[in-house]
Amino acid sequence: MFSVTVRDHIMVAHSFTGEVFGPAQKLHGATFVVDATFRRPELDDDNIVVDIGLALEELRAICGGLSYRNLDDESDFAGINTSTEFLAKVIADRLADKVASGGLGAGAAGLTGISVTLHESHVAWASYERAL
Amino acid sequence: MFSVTVRDHIMVAHSFTGEVFGPAQKLHGATFVVDATFRRPELDDDNIVVDIGLALEELRAICGGLSYRNLDDESDFAGINTSTEFLAKVIADRLADKVASGGLGAGAAGLTGISVTLHESHVAWASYERAL
Amino acid sequence: MFSVTVRDHIMVAHSFTGEVFGPAQKLHGATFVVDATFRRPELDDDNIVVDIGLALEELRAICGGLSYRNLDDESDFAGINTSTEFLAKVIADRLADKVASGGLGAGAAGLTGISVTLHESHVAWASYERAL
Amino acid sequence: MFSVTVRDHIMVAHSFTGEVFGPAQKLHGATFVVDATFRRPELDDDNIVVDIGLALEELRAICGGLSYRNLDDESDFAGINTSTEFLAKVIADRLADKVASGGLGAGAAGLTGISVTLHESHVAWASYERAL
Amino acid sequence: MFSVTVRDHIMVAHSFTGEVFGPAQKLHGATFVVDATFRRPELDDDNIVVDIGLALEELRAICGGLSYRNLDDESDFAGINTSTEFLAKVIADRLADKVASGGLGAGAAGLTGISVTLHESHVAWASYERAL
Amino acid sequence: MFSVTVRDHIMVAHSFTGEVFGPAQKLHGATFVVDATFRRPELDDDNIVVDIGLALEELRAICGGLSYRNLDDESDFAGINTSTEFLAKVIADRLADKVASGGLGAGAAGLTGISVTLHESHVAWASYERAL
Repeated sequence: MFSVTVRDHIMVAHSFTGEVFGPAQKLHGATFVVDATFRRPELDDDNIVVDIGLALEELRAICGGLSYRNLDDESDFAGINTSTEFLAKVIADRLADKVASGGLGAGAAGLTGISVTLHESHVAWASYERAL
Repeated sequence: MFSVTVRDHIMVAHSFTGEVFGPAQKLHGATFVVDATFRRPELDDDNIVVDIGLALEELRAICGGLSYRNLDDESDFAGINTSTEFLAKVIADRLADKVASGGLGAGAAGLTGISVTLHESHVAWASYERAL
Repeated sequence: MFSVTVRDHIMVAHSFTGEVFGPAQKLHGATFVVDATFRRPELDDDNIVVDIGLALEELRAICGGLSYRNLDDESDFAGINTSTEFLAKVIADRLADKVASGGLGAGAAGLTGISVTLHESHVAWASYERAL
Repeated sequence: MFSVTVRDHIMVAHSFTGEVFGPAQKLHGATFVVDATFRRPELDDDNIVVDIGLALEELRAICGGLSYRNLDDESDFAGINTSTEFLAKVIADRLADKVASGGLGAGAAGLTGISVTLHESHVAWASYERAL
Repeated sequence: MFSVTVRDHIMVAHSFTGEVFGPAQKLHGATFVVDATFRRPELDDDNIVVDIGLALEELRAICGGLSYRNLDDESDFAGINTSTEFLAKVIADRLADKVASGGLGAGAAGLTGISVTLHESHVAWASYERAL
Repeated sequence: MFSVTVRDHIMVAHSFTGEVFGPAQKLHGATFVVDATFRRPELDDDNIVVDIGLALEELRAICGGLSYRNLDDESDFAGINTSTEFLAKVIADRLADKVASGGLGAGAAGLTGISVTLHESHVAWASYERAL
């Protein structure tokens, strides 16, 4: 199995609902360093997993649509705890949509899986992994 | 599949038995930076994998029970080579016990796997992965 | 010259005033990984720069007083752009106060400088350096 | 499942053929930081995954056979795009050959898998994973 | 003293002249992860060291003018060993020119120093520091 | 001012004397990732700060003379707290001796300073800086 990973980041405000979150129930914020991994069992005709330029570009576009805002005010996330693990899924699903709609090029049709890791600090990170 | 990882560290002395260990047969030491990963297929009702505060706290307690000592003198490890990979299993198993006994909260009942990685230097690390 | 550095982090929301900040004028957030460095020309009687346990403890206390909040609502920062470089100075000055009031132990009287670096992402960080 | 990873690096020139590579069609170069992971379900009689000294030595030998050259001039890679993901496979396969020929010691017979990750920058890396 | 650092990277081929370079006399290549630091004693009216958006943009432009090429073929570097330390100076000087010509904004007039670090691998890096 | 840094590591056991050390008064251990920086105002005739191959080799030799042992048993350190900051000085001074005796090549005569940083964990490191 082959994979390629590209990195970008988002900077957001948000708050959580539920006693389990302790002080994070208050409005606070985070930088999430975002690693997006694309997987496939065999390389394509160019000997690659995915066009890394397009992968970086599409990840940047998705991060741009999430960054520099208060996630509590986003209609997409109304009533939802935007935990690190949940946001990993949001980004993975949006990347999967890009793959399906051809945004990562024709070669990306051979991709079989995506995973996304969000680093919230030097001591904590979360991931979501899915098939394509 | 979702996961959350938290990081802590231990600082220990130990020695190894067996020619394969070369100079490490002598008493020496290591800092192990410890990454503990918790896995589950679906998020819980709070939209998380595990209470990250409790995860950090329990990992800290386990690290506290191993750190600042000579592992050669610990009865738990009598006659055992406390290799990096073996210590990864020790910590993963102790975390699994914590999950089973409720130390990571009721929500942690949905966890299905744990893996632990110990970084012994900038050029070597070891992992152990198990089901719950 | 000797130095010792310890690391912690804060997670905050804030917004900026001024066209130079572009999209960061909107309420957003950041994780700042905080590195605090203590300097002195000679080691103390214990052969150290500073009690590293106390240094970690006091840095944690200062980070605790800043984290998990919206800095726009803090009276200390009313009307101030809480840029990364400014926050580095805030933390350095608070550490300097701790040194002066004995919070880092008697040995810390020999410290001659402090610097603080705040990492806001994998591609940007800021520092402030001062004498004691 | 247990694993051990060791790190080394190579510094190479190369160029790519195909429009998908954009500016990388020109002769350029890369440092690849190479992480080689060895896997097995149970530890050996010495309580380890693999002789880490031999693992570092064999990885160094393989890296030495690739580094400080223009891959476009290597007969092994004639007419091949030496992408990061392809080179990960090259190194993993060469390590697998070493395991098979006894270069990693008798204990290495219990290894069941190898994966190799090549970091080409702080924002991109690629991996290849195979069974033994 | 305050500073802000931004990161980008270049991927180049080159060779060196001189026995001191050993195997690096052959055409090879490197990824240089580039950290550019801007310094000043006091913050500007916006409470910052430099417009970080412009800093990233100008660093990207300078990296773009160096990356994806064989430095041996660049007229700027004819007959010059493009060592890591030398390239750090090239980038620092080009950034200094940008500051002087207003490319980093009017506020950048208060900058007093620049340093650039190029990481060539996980075990080696080089820096150049200059006044403005 | 130019600098070049190379990295290696040591793995040692030791204990400390003095209440300030808390639990670290017991025999324990550490991995110290060692960064050695060489400084000079102008590059040499080869356009470099120092022969990086020799720098890595000499640092490796010095690390080899410290690693895989219990520092409490070393006559060089009898009655001395081998703190991270102290060990940074030990390594810097040994490197300075190598420079003086020609071990880093004739070009190294132009070096004006050395600093050494020892990383003891992901949250603590110490440095020593000296002139040549």
